Amino acid sequence: MDFNDYKLEEYLEFAKDIANYAGEIMIKYFNHNNGASYKGDKTIVTLADKEINSYLIEKVKEKYPTHSVDGEEEQFGKSDYLWICDPVDGTAMYARHIPVAVFSLALAVNGMPLIGVILDPFTNNLYTAIKGKGAYKNGEKITVNNYELDGMKTVCHFDIWPTAEYNIYEVIKELSEKTYFIGIGSVIRACMCVATGDFCLAVFPGSKHKNCDIAAVKIIVEEAGGKVTDLFGNEQRYDKSINGAIISNGKVHNEVVKTINKYVTNKNLNN
Amino acid sequence: MDFNDYKLEEYLEFAKDIANYAGEIMIKYFNHNNGASYKGDKTIVTLADKEINSYLIEKVKEKYPTHSVDGEEEQFGKSDYLWICDPVDGTAMYARHIPVAVFSLALAVNGMPLIGVILDPFTNNLYTAIKGKGAYKNGEKITVNNYELDGMKTVCHFDIWPTAEYNIYEVIKELSEKTYFIGIGSVIRACMCVATGDFCLAVFPGSKHKNCDIAAVKIIVEEAGGKVTDLFGNEQRYDKSINGAIISNGKVHNEVVKTINKYVTNKNLNN
Repeated sequence: MDFNDYKLEEYLEFAKDIANYAGEIMIKYFNHNNGASYKGDKTIVTLADKEINSYLIEKVKEKYPTHSVDGEEEQFGKSDYLWICDPVDGTAMYARHIPVAVFSLALAVNGMPLIGVILDPFTNNLYTAIKGKGAYKNGEKITVNNYELDGMKTVCHFDIWPTAEYNIYEVIKELSEKTYFIGIGSVIRACMCVATGDFCLAVFPGSKHKNCDIAAVKIIVEEAGGKVTDLFGNEQRYDKSINGAIISNGKVHNEVVKTINKYVTNKNLNN
Repeated sequence: MDFNDYKLEEYLEFAKDIANYAGEIMIKYFNHNNGASYKGDKTIVTLADKEINSYLIEKVKEKYPTHSVDGEEEQFGKSDYLWICDPVDGTAMYARHIPVAVFSLALAVNGMPLIGVILDPFTNNLYTAIKGKGAYKNGEKITVNNYELDGMKTVCHFDIWPTAEYNIYEVIKELSEKTYFIGIGSVIRACMCVATGDFCLAVFPGSKHKNCDIAAVKIIVEEAGGKVTDLFGNEQRYDKSINGAIISNGKVHNEVVKTINKYVTNKNLNN
């Protein structure tokens, strides 16, 4: 494939515009202190998710009518050019008024992300990458760290939820003897900490439609010098369900893959 | 003991003033984007912690010279009236530019908290309680929820770190089949989610000097209708090291105690 740099820049600008809109929506509903009950909070998240997802589809139809959209809430079209979006990652946090949630958008061609944009509207940090051009936070180059797992000095992230396709409990248990694990409720936000060198690692046990979580992460973290694979160390496509994910600084990747292989059977869900 | 209500109100006002100052310091260093390295970030946290802790001691000496202070960073005096403070809880998050960190302060008399103040400077939420008078967020009454653990609908928090006195892995593993567990990096922030009904539970495996983490939580969560005990369901003092902690909506408390007793041996560290 040969991609025109100018075109990729244009796609990135488009994605940044969508991100800005998404950030406004996220802040609007987050600050919407209407004394909402638990149920009400969930409704708020759904509203934010849906509004952002619909807006993306509307804009893609307008500007790139031959492209398609794979949003967590809504999809559109069928094309090799696929906009992959998680409108609000960190739903459980966002709905409970904890400011840890992000917007994520990638453009993938034949399953491989070429540009990625992630916005944290709470700290006003915009993470971007174009294939081969490095990763940036608010326009400044970012890189992963080069730490091995080292007790409380290194922070790693994991997600575990009752319906996840993989049970990574034993993996986290073993690795947690070597590092401090937290689970901040938004894998994408955590992965931006990997990209900036604040975290070493994120382990993600989800599959079905979870390409929306990892597509933009894939390009941003790898352009920052890190590594993103499925749970077993294999490359994977991001235009369909994934086979879990390891997102790391590269340095600790093999150790994590080895530990996963000790405890988890590969179900090859990326197909 | 018979405490003058007016006096408790005065203590609360004093604590709120300290919280406001602490919030300013926390925001100042958090936004101090000086391209700090990992090491630099740690320094920033230490600075914030120390400045807040010193300020508290200075103000207590000035206003209540017979009282004492047990801060995470610095202590002062020896009295039955003890101001127990965690200047910045959520250090690992705060140092990595994730806006999940809080200031916490309680006044305990003979080890039992009578007033508590917790400030989340990132969402501008101030949580307060006076013994017997209910718990409040920004002046509005808050109460715990009454949920049983119920899959993804209920969120619980846990902390696990390599040097914690208790290993609660098996407990979390068993309970995580029934609920969504996250570990947001600040037990105190998580406990405020218990107080407002956003979370059901937090499980905390620390002991040594961890009274600073749980003293204000104890009174705010219980005044909101919840329950706070050591890891084994026993009441404990907060003027010395604690024996871990369970912070819950009350409803799930016994189930958690039972699960802990299955896997964890009581070391009676609260002495």
